[in-house]
Amino acid sequence: MPEISHRGEEMPASPIRRLVPLANEAVKRGLKVYRLNIGQPDVPTPPEALEALKKIDRNVLEYSPSEGLLSLRKKLCEYYHRFNIDVNVDDIIVTCGGSEAVLFAFMACLDPGDEIIVPEPAYANYMAFAISAGAKIVTVPSSIENGFELPPVEEFEKLITPRTKGILICNPNNPTGYLYTMKEMLQIRDLVKKHDIFLFSDEVYREFCYTGAPYISAFHLPGIEENVVLIDSVSKRYNECGIRIGALITKHEKLKKNVMKFCQARLSPPLLGQIVAEASIDADAGYMLATYNEYVERRKFMIDSLNKIPGCYSPIPMGAFYTVAKLPVDDADKFCQWCLKEFEYEGQTIFMAPASGFYTTPGIGRDEVRLAYVLCREDLEKAMKVLAEALKAYPGRTI
Amino acid sequence: MPEISHRGEEMPASPIRRLVPLANEAVKRGLKVYRLNIGQPDVPTPPEALEALKKIDRNVLEYSPSEGLLSLRKKLCEYYHRFNIDVNVDDIIVTCGGSEAVLFAFMACLDPGDEIIVPEPAYANYMAFAISAGAKIVTVPSSIENGFELPPVEEFEKLITPRTKGILICNPNNPTGYLYTMKEMLQIRDLVKKHDIFLFSDEVYREFCYTGAPYISAFHLPGIEENVVLIDSVSKRYNECGIRIGALITKHEKLKKNVMKFCQARLSPPLLGQIVAEASIDADAGYMLATYNEYVERRKFMIDSLNKIPGCYSPIPMGAFYTVAKLPVDDADKFCQWCLKEFEYEGQTIFMAPASGFYTTPGIGRDEVRLAYVLCREDLEKAMKVLAEALKAYPGRTI
Repeated sequence: MPEISHRGEEMPASPIRRLVPLANEAVKRGLKVYRLNIGQPDVPTPPEALEALKKIDRNVLEYSPSEGLLSLRKKLCEYYHRFNIDVNVDDIIVTCGGSEAVLFAFMACLDPGDEIIVPEPAYANYMAFAISAGAKIVTVPSSIENGFELPPVEEFEKLITPRTKGILICNPNNPTGYLYTMKEMLQIRDLVKKHDIFLFSDEVYREFCYTGAPYISAFHLPGIEENVVLIDSVSKRYNECGIRIGALITKHEKLKKNVMKFCQARLSPPLLGQIVAEASIDADAGYMLATYNEYVERRKFMIDSLNKIPGCYSPIPMGAFYTVAKLPVDDADKFCQWCLKEFEYEGQTIFMAPASGFYTTPGIGRDEVRLAYVLCREDLEKAMKVLAEALKAYPGRTI
Repeated sequence: MPEISHRGEEMPASPIRRLVPLANEAVKRGLKVYRLNIGQPDVPTPPEALEALKKIDRNVLEYSPSEGLLSLRKKLCEYYHRFNIDVNVDDIIVTCGGSEAVLFAFMACLDPGDEIIVPEPAYANYMAFAISAGAKIVTVPSSIENGFELPPVEEFEKLITPRTKGILICNPNNPTGYLYTMKEMLQIRDLVKKHDIFLFSDEVYREFCYTGAPYISAFHLPGIEENVVLIDSVSKRYNECGIRIGALITKHEKLKKNVMKFCQARLSPPLLGQIVAEASIDADAGYMLATYNEYVERRKFMIDSLNKIPGCYSPIPMGAFYTVAKLPVDDADKFCQWCLKEFEYEGQTIFMAPASGFYTTPGIGRDEVRLAYVLCREDLEKAMKVLAEALKAYPGRTI
């Protein structure tokens, strides 16, 4: 039997993924499992999107252009202009989800051995895409005690080597819900400018900022326009994760050409998803507001509930629909596993993501979990009750 | 401005892509351009597929499983069984087009520096995916004089090094239309078995075999079941290139797990495309036969026409919907460019793919082009007339 690649073996098996079979078994045992482990919300896709889907009237479902449909890119331009993001149609390359945008950004910017610096905890799949590109992710820990604010810029600077090609941020942040302040964004800007490196900015949660603090796009930062590689996706904002439409946006002409080579190799992004995405951008303000309000409500409820549980602590997430909470447990990996395998409360249990999957520095975040507030209020209430009961019963509790 | 990756710069800018702007300018000048340059046929997508699309009735367009919808994988199983390909649901991983299947196959099997041997001319994007994975494609030339039959197995053997991890074939072949014989497939099998390497087999054109000679899948070859990585796609067989649904099929358990890591990183294949693909597999026999007959007719017409033009020669392609033809020109790159830039016949011209893009050995195939018989008979007739006239007028003609 031929040997497989080492690259694949290096790829971390995510602790969330490892728990999926346990969750499925719990369901088989008849338990109701509240899934706060992934960002798959239960809110509907906009009616405009679903209607556009029904109205598709073509005889041939043909290739679309490698850079995406022009009509979609025009619509995206309008959308970004609403956020004062000054990009034009030629700056936008449509991708198969934000995932492909990250992969192509890495492929087109980084050579094997190149490094990028990422504040952690961070979205686990960045690591997988870096491994795909042969690049190295170097992390700077942020801490729950400081509400996951940007680590001191000196910590980034310490890690810069001749191989450092960029900094990656996710803003608003998955998994922490943190929203970077103008001061922090300017610090990042200065660093990027000083070293003339890329700023990869994943801004897929921009619609979900809850505190009145402004959302600052990497493209709002003056003087680094050609350093910014913006990663975007319609998945979260219109709750259409399955259509796989994202975008890579850059004003760096040579980079655009380079990214396009990867795009041309894979021929085209999904046609049907593009049609749906384009219609979604016209989603009624009422839909967007209702979705937003729903998350505001859920967030308040979840964070309040968490902080009422003895020994639990969650900072108040300013954006996205996740929070990272500290639990009074010996080991969150074990606790999450135990919840699915050995615990039940009135026929229910809870599926959370151990935060260890979002850190690369060994040992940190071991008592943390990520919770996605993607379920309706009623289910969230039950889930929080289950969590409180689980923490009372867990043998490895620390209080 | 930060520097982009060298990887991207290494990626060949395909000669077809370079001609696209010229074709667009020709259209702007008012010319009718017959596009025989790419595999985007004009035949309709099956009505069953279009109906399934209209019937999608969901409120949330959610993520599908990373390995693809179970119902689609079951249906694909049934489909493969019709071809005596003995695979089960767990062997099938749904991908975003055949493109992603090739990329993930390379990522999961090959480490940087690893080599695979490919008979050329070959589908140009294999090269791009190999560069993405840091792997090296080594080619064995086949020749138009021998109808693009498999080069002698000794030629493969000469190229095997400790870094050789596999052989890649496309059967029926893009660009040549060649269909490997049982004798040739058994030679490949022996080689794969002897060196215990992977056999990547791209079989997306299996529905299009015209000569009565059997289509032999890599999975039909005994004794190398765990070495085979089958690449598939619904794009060509149901003419739904835009839905981006393909598959990677393997019985190598460790490889499956490895591929799944890349699949999980990109979360899920396109949901809507999967629904359409599943319905397509139920396409009426009448639809499949009509499509097939259409290609039989076009193929006969195009090959006959080509061989009637003085100095032209095309072998008879046994499958797919392409042929590689030799033209009486000094340089097919120049000729194809000249057709778009400087030539017209009664307000028309022709867009062909210079074969140089399908070869890596420098200098060979310089008087060859790939022609896709993807247009209706009437357009093909006009296109062939235009080609004949162009060859009379071209200053670099060799006869």
